[in-house]
Amino acid sequence: MANPSAAMLVIGDEILSGRTRDSNMHFLAGELTKHGIDLKEVRVVADDRDAIVAAVKALSEGHDAVFTSGGIGPTHDDITADCIAAAFEVSIDVRDDARAILQAHYDATGLELNAARLRMARIPEGATLIDNPVSRAPGFTIGNVHVMAGVPAVFQAMVASVLPTLTGGAPLLSQSLRVYRGEGDIADLLGQLAAEYADLSIGCYPFQKDGVFGANVVVRGQDGSRVDAAMADLARGLDL
Amino acid sequence: MANPSAAMLVIGDEILSGRTRDSNMHFLAGELTKHGIDLKEVRVVADDRDAIVAAVKALSEGHDAVFTSGGIGPTHDDITADCIAAAFEVSIDVRDDARAILQAHYDATGLELNAARLRMARIPEGATLIDNPVSRAPGFTIGNVHVMAGVPAVFQAMVASVLPTLTGGAPLLSQSLRVYRGEGDIADLLGQLAAEYADLSIGCYPFQKDGVFGANVVVRGQDGSRVDAAMADLARGLDL
Repeated sequence: MANPSAAMLVIGDEILSGRTRDSNMHFLAGELTKHGIDLKEVRVVADDRDAIVAAVKALSEGHDAVFTSGGIGPTHDDITADCIAAAFEVSIDVRDDARAILQAHYDATGLELNAARLRMARIPEGATLIDNPVSRAPGFTIGNVHVMAGVPAVFQAMVASVLPTLTGGAPLLSQSLRVYRGEGDIADLLGQLAAEYADLSIGCYPFQKDGVFGANVVVRGQDGSRVDAAMADLARGLDL
Repeated sequence: MANPSAAMLVIGDEILSGRTRDSNMHFLAGELTKHGIDLKEVRVVADDRDAIVAAVKALSEGHDAVFTSGGIGPTHDDITADCIAAAFEVSIDVRDDARAILQAHYDATGLELNAARLRMARIPEGATLIDNPVSRAPGFTIGNVHVMAGVPAVFQAMVASVLPTLTGGAPLLSQSLRVYRGEGDIADLLGQLAAEYADLSIGCYPFQKDGVFGANVVVRGQDGSRVDAAMADLARGLDL
């Protein structure tokens, strides 16, 4: 049976301008793979309402689950929650349970829960909250979309909150072999293997370092015995 | 005048499985910003024909320029060139000038230009070649789409070949200020600035490290005097 499919939407001008190097995509990709959910597509868009709404709609319709990162803080450029509400055509307002979480946090830290911070309690109608053990301001899930913070420590904590609630499939297993030959010399063999093991994904990633070149061959699949068999055929084909 | 807009398409199972952390997006984002081209969107898709063709069509129609990375090597999973030809509805075959580049390279290195390697000379009809000073196998440009390798050293060299051929706008200038206050305390001020300087992008990126917290405020725009003025107003608003 095919694993559930997922997409990710990274939101933020700072990624597209090159100011910040995103790390959430790589983290989420690894976690989903372990959980047996296939990340099929990632999109990165700016802090732009039309772009966010269009991407959320497209990804939500095309995949079993969508994960967003970024744009849920207290400042004017944090427009993700409103865009999600627009994409789902529901209302959005400050919600009592989210406000209570923020109130308790700011009471404890001696900071004021002002109008800007209260924006972080704006939750689309019908959403459920995602726990944020790091900085309290919650994320939320609506439909199949999980809306999370962009700050990596918070994003990672929210992923840890959400993943156990999702049904995964078989984790994607992988084995790899480092081959000291040019990709072009092993391409035929890999093509034959890919045809024979159509249920597996067989990838070839060249490297060149300090005058030594070769390729890492990676075999991925849900069935460990098939992965083993393909690796054995690979080794035989290479006369190893 | 608005700068030209660009999109990027990253192609490869290895990114989506979490095996490899992409670095080409961050590199391209920085280069485009310096060149005065606005990177508006990035998509990452698997080595899947339908997904690649659909993404190329959508991005090519929606932006002035598209940059792709990945999938142009000699192995069975390198399907980008064929997908680009399909997206543009043109034929694809081994081309003499591309073959000559490869032949000279393999003659010099003593390796055989076999059928697998010859796949790297398959160029869609009407494309122009992109020079690859690192490992010779060329990229190509067709319409507004620039097709480049995924290996970072090669990708970077190809970007260096392509960028001077593109008309850029005004480089995006940016200044930033590190503020040791909570985002929620400066959100009102930033909202006012964003409204007053609608031609600029004003971003706020919180940090928290070793018990110290605050935010980096980044002001970006094409007009240096406007960026200066906004930074001065920001400092005044913060009583600095």
